Amino acid sequence: MKAAILGFGVVGSGTYEVLSKSPVKVDVKRILDIRHDPLVADKLTTDINDILNDPEIELVAETMGGLHPAYEYVTAAMKAGKNVVTSNKKLVATYYAELISLAEEKGVSFRFTPSAGGGIPWLSNIVHRACTEKILKVQGIINGTTNFILDSMQSRGADFSEVLAEAQDLGYAERDPSSDIDGEDVKFKCALSASCAFGVQVSESDIPTFSLRNIKKDDMAYASKMGMNVKYMAFAANKGEGAFSAYVEPVFVPNNCLEASVHLNNNFVSLFGEYSGRLSFFGQGAGKYPTGASVATDMIAIFKGKNFPVICKGNGIVKNGEEFHRYYIRTTEKLAALCGLVETCEEKNGVFYIVTREISVESMHKFADEIRKRDADVFFAGIHPEV
Amino acid sequence: MKAAILGFGVVGSGTYEVLSKSPVKVDVKRILDIRHDPLVADKLTTDINDILNDPEIELVAETMGGLHPAYEYVTAAMKAGKNVVTSNKKLVATYYAELISLAEEKGVSFRFTPSAGGGIPWLSNIVHRACTEKILKVQGIINGTTNFILDSMQSRGADFSEVLAEAQDLGYAERDPSSDIDGEDVKFKCALSASCAFGVQVSESDIPTFSLRNIKKDDMAYASKMGMNVKYMAFAANKGEGAFSAYVEPVFVPNNCLEASVHLNNNFVSLFGEYSGRLSFFGQGAGKYPTGASVATDMIAIFKGKNFPVICKGNGIVKNGEEFHRYYIRTTEKLAALCGLVETCEEKNGVFYIVTREISVESMHKFADEIRKRDADVFFAGIHPEV
Repeated sequence: MKAAILGFGVVGSGTYEVLSKSPVKVDVKRILDIRHDPLVADKLTTDINDILNDPEIELVAETMGGLHPAYEYVTAAMKAGKNVVTSNKKLVATYYAELISLAEEKGVSFRFTPSAGGGIPWLSNIVHRACTEKILKVQGIINGTTNFILDSMQSRGADFSEVLAEAQDLGYAERDPSSDIDGEDVKFKCALSASCAFGVQVSESDIPTFSLRNIKKDDMAYASKMGMNVKYMAFAANKGEGAFSAYVEPVFVPNNCLEASVHLNNNFVSLFGEYSGRLSFFGQGAGKYPTGASVATDMIAIFKGKNFPVICKGNGIVKNGEEFHRYYIRTTEKLAALCGLVETCEEKNGVFYIVTREISVESMHKFADEIRKRDADVFFAGIHPEV
Repeated sequence: MKAAILGFGVVGSGTYEVLSKSPVKVDVKRILDIRHDPLVADKLTTDINDILNDPEIELVAETMGGLHPAYEYVTAAMKAGKNVVTSNKKLVATYYAELISLAEEKGVSFRFTPSAGGGIPWLSNIVHRACTEKILKVQGIINGTTNFILDSMQSRGADFSEVLAEAQDLGYAERDPSSDIDGEDVKFKCALSASCAFGVQVSESDIPTFSLRNIKKDDMAYASKMGMNVKYMAFAANKGEGAFSAYVEPVFVPNNCLEASVHLNNNFVSLFGEYSGRLSFFGQGAGKYPTGASVATDMIAIFKGKNFPVICKGNGIVKNGEEFHRYYIRTTEKLAALCGLVETCEEKNGVFYIVTREISVESMHKFADEIRKRDADVFFAGIHPEV
C-alpha cells in the first residue's frame, strides 16, 4: 500500500500527519511540493514523473488546490493506472463528468469526499446512497465562515462587519472574504453535492446566488420576531425529466429546527432519499485535521476496498467511575444517601426536585438501586450543559 | 451479483423492494422464509442448504432477527465463503468479536450497518473512521420510540402514559414497550456503537441504564425552567488503558443544542474523532424502507467494493422556476416590481422590511438584479418554515 501526496500545504500535511498515526497503515512514499519541509525531506520531489513512473505507488492524493496543474496531474495519474483521491472542489466541480468517466475507463478508484464538507463524510455517503435509491434533494449549511458570522451575530447581537473582522482575526475568514460571503464557495459545493446526488454534472455557473454581504443586525432581529434564525444555505432538488433546481441564499429557518442549532463554523448537510427519508450530517467543513482525516479515510477506503476492516481486539471493560455530571432526581424520598451531593432541592406536595452536584455515573447508578427500593416512581436524568 | 435474503418480514421485504428499483442492480436469487408470499414465490425456500450450497449466491442478507437460528445461518454462510449483511442488533452485539474474526478468517465481507441506527449510515461510518483515527467517544439519541414520546410530551405538555398510548396507536411503540422505554434496545445499540468505535467488544450487559418509564410532565417542566430539554441518550467514551465508560440515561440538554431539536421518532448520533472532531448523523432509526435501504446499501457496497461507482450520466439542467417560497427583503426602494407579491411591508426610517408571498426562485433572483441596481445594500433571504 504505497501512496503519494501532491501538495504539502494545510490539507496535504494534515493528511500526512493523520496517516502517520492511523490504525490502518498507508505508506506515503512520495510528496510533491516545491517548498522544502525538512520533516519529509526524504520523500519530497518537484517532478510529477517520479510519481507517475513509480509502479509501487498505487494511489495519488491531490491536495494542491486550483485547476492547473491539478487537472493535468490527476488525469495523468489515472492514465498511469493509479487511484486518485482529491480535496479540490474546483477541480472536481469543473471536470466532474470527465474525471468520473476517465476513472471508469482506466478501472481506477476516484474519491473526492474532502472536496465539499471538509471533514464530513458527505459526498461519499451521497454517492453510496445514489447507488441504492433515488435522491430527491440535497441541502444544507456548507460554509463554515458564513455560519460563524451568522452565529456570532445571532448570539451577541453584533453587526456583520464587526464579526467578519473577528472571524478574520481567528483565521475563520480570509483577508479577502468575498469567495465565502458572496457565495462562490457554497456554489461549487452545491454543484458537487447535486452532481453526486442526481447522477449528472450540475454546473456551478448555473446556480443563482444571493450574497450574505449586506446582512445587518436589523435582519436578524426581523427573523427573531418571526421565531426564526438566519442561515446561509445551498439547495438542490430533482424536479424530474432531467431538470434540477439549485440555488444559494440566506434563509430564515424556524428556531426549533436542526439548522438553527448549528453553531460556530460547523456545517450541516442533508439528503432526502426516496426510501431513507432525510439523512443529515454534521461536522467541521474545513480545517487541516478534519479535512486531512477525510482524505486519509478515502485513501484507506480505496486500499481496503470491500473488505474494509472492522477492528476488534477482544473485550472492552466498562468503567463509569470517572464519568462525572450533575443529575436531576424527582423522588418522594428524603435522600440521606446523597448527603453533601445535593446542589438544590425544592419540595412541593411531598415531592423533592433535586439537582445534584457532579457525581460519577457509577455512583449514581448504585444509589439509584437503593432509592428505587423505596420509591418505584423515582425519575433520574443526567444534566449535560454541553453535548 | 447474486444474493439471498434470510427472513421476509418488515426489513427483509423492504430490502427486496428497495433493490428491485435500485440504480445499481443486485439479483436476489433466493429468499428464506416459512411464510409464503406469492409475490416472490419463485424465490422462496425453507431450507438454508438451498442457499449455502448454491455457488452463485455470493452474499447473504440476514433480516430475521433473534439469536437463533440467525447465528447458525450467518456463521454457516461465512464458512461457505459467502459475504454477510445483517440488520440484527442482538446477533451482532452478542457475537461481535466472533463474527468479525470468522469473516476475517474466511476472507469474506461482514457488514451490519442497519443493526443500529436503522436507515442512518452510522455504524459503517464509525468503522471507516476507526481505521483512520482514534475515536474518543460516541453518543446520541438512538431509539425512535422514546424520542417520539419525549418530543410529544415537550411540544404538547402531555403526560407519558398519554403519548405512549398514542405512539402505540401510530405503530411507533410496541404493545409491550418495555424494551424501548426501559432502555434495553438502546443498551444493545450503545454496545454496538462502542464496539465499532473502540475496536473491542463492549458487552451490552455491562452498560448501566436508567429507564424512561417514570418520567412525568413535572420533569419536563423542571428542565424547561433550566432552559433545557429532556432526551434519552446513550454515551460511551474511551477512557484510556483499555477501559471504557458506557451508560444509558435520560438527560437534560440545552435548548439550543442539536439534540434538543431532534423531533418525532428520529435518531441523532455523534462520534468524536481525534482529528475530525465531532461528526453527527441524523435520520430514521427504524422502519421498513429506511432500514431496507441501509441493508441494500451494505449489499451494494460489498459487491462494488473499492470501485463503488459514482453515477454520472452527462449534464444536468438547472431550472428554478418551479421552486417556490416566501422571501424577506430589506431595501430603501419602493418595489413596484413586486406589486401584488408583497405579503407584509413595514417602513421604519426610510427602510422597507418586506415579506413576500410565495414566489419562484427564478423570478426572485431576476427581480434581485433589478433592485440591486438602485439599492446596493439590499438584503434578501428565503423564508423556510420547514427545512
